[in-house]
Amino acid sequence: MDKFLKYPNEQIDDLLCDGLKIIQKQDSYKFAIDSVLLANFIKADKNDRVIDIGTGSGVIALLLSAKTDAKEIVGIEIVGEAFDRAVRNVKMNRLEERVKIVHGDLKEAVKIFGRESFSVVVTNPPYMMINEGKISPNPSIAVARHEVAATLEDVAKVSWQLLSFGGCFYMVYRTVRLVDVIYKMRSLGLEPKILRFIHPKAQAGPNLFLMMAKKGASGGIKILPPLVVYNSDGSYTDEIKQIYFGKRPEV
Amino acid sequence: MDKFLKYPNEQIDDLLCDGLKIIQKQDSYKFAIDSVLLANFIKADKNDRVIDIGTGSGVIALLLSAKTDAKEIVGIEIVGEAFDRAVRNVKMNRLEERVKIVHGDLKEAVKIFGRESFSVVVTNPPYMMINEGKISPNPSIAVARHEVAATLEDVAKVSWQLLSFGGCFYMVYRTVRLVDVIYKMRSLGLEPKILRFIHPKAQAGPNLFLMMAKKGASGGIKILPPLVVYNSDGSYTDEIKQIYFGKRPEV
Repeated sequence: MDKFLKYPNEQIDDLLCDGLKIIQKQDSYKFAIDSVLLANFIKADKNDRVIDIGTGSGVIALLLSAKTDAKEIVGIEIVGEAFDRAVRNVKMNRLEERVKIVHGDLKEAVKIFGRESFSVVVTNPPYMMINEGKISPNPSIAVARHEVAATLEDVAKVSWQLLSFGGCFYMVYRTVRLVDVIYKMRSLGLEPKILRFIHPKAQAGPNLFLMMAKKGASGGIKILPPLVVYNSDGSYTDEIKQIYFGKRPEV
Repeated sequence: MDKFLKYPNEQIDDLLCDGLKIIQKQDSYKFAIDSVLLANFIKADKNDRVIDIGTGSGVIALLLSAKTDAKEIVGIEIVGEAFDRAVRNVKMNRLEERVKIVHGDLKEAVKIFGRESFSVVVTNPPYMMINEGKISPNPSIAVARHEVAATLEDVAKVSWQLLSFGGCFYMVYRTVRLVDVIYKMRSLGLEPKILRFIHPKAQAGPNLFLMMAKKGASGGIKILPPLVVYNSDGSYTDEIKQIYFGKRPEV
């Protein structure tokens, strides 16, 4: 499989899901548990056209190909080297038929794909505002972590434009900005319908949340049971083990 | 203490908190766990002037007199018989110095008390919209459960008007309307700052939440650990036992 490696410090990791592999770079942005939990939270069936905006190396797109029956999965990524890795990841996993990767700015996605061209929009956007913490000199890390290429506002607006009426938007984000997210979604007509909080431990407050919002839906949200990552002894909980190492979930 | 009973089917219950007692009516609205959890969630010190809008029989006002050092606690209630019970509850517990009960419509509260006249506003508003479920023929139950006398919109607007800049708004509400609450609060400039979800059991989604919002605050919310009511065997959790039967919490 070495023919798929191109840049120094790249390595091939096992995604532990239907034999999927992923090329990552040691000193660049590497996928974390939030992407895996988001991919697992998403529902899509054989009629769905899905886009992952800001796909990075394509981890969510790869996982969705195994975890859902989605007809087509598109990823768009602005950082050249990450885009290039995503393309190689699709080839290496022989997913070219269902998964397409596009090099571009998500703010241009409507020009590229057209309005209301997707039934599902997915994103794991940067968590940090420009004025928070140190911005990485590595563009792949900087764009993935900080709102240097796109803000929450951009992501929400583009998602609304890309979604067909009744289509679903899925995101993972940090709880400190829950009010920003809910306010923006409702303002745009992307109504938050399902929320699940991710707790490091059962007795701890959540640090992340998973959200599904539906374009044009009426009000009323369902909050799912807490998703707890670690047991008190530091081992993964059964649910996390199932998500990480388990089989394709029943739909 | 029988001299405090006035209407048929009234009874005196123990609030299990600093010797407080409460008159309730068997066939009328009786306080439930949500009021106790809300009272326990509220922070107020000796400089605070607190108002409980829609105080019913005054359970939250009574509990706050024991659980906080608030200088003054005011309750306003529209239903005559509930107001009358609240007045007797204050007298029976000899709290006339710190707790005042006013008979009136919360929508008139700004006329009665003036703008920005409280540093803390508290409410356990009706959970049901007019078009949901059957409205009770008993006015005390109807007003407590359904938005017949005031809507969430009314409650939010009046609270904002009554609060001084930097003052805190506390509520308990049902999770299905979380988006409505957050959207309305942010729109008004009552920024949600602390959220705690109440889960019937640890493995269940929450059905209620406690929220603190601050007038004029900037964004950023803290979500506390889940507040779980029952153990899996149906007994109360230690935290609930502590809240219900415990001593005054450390501030």
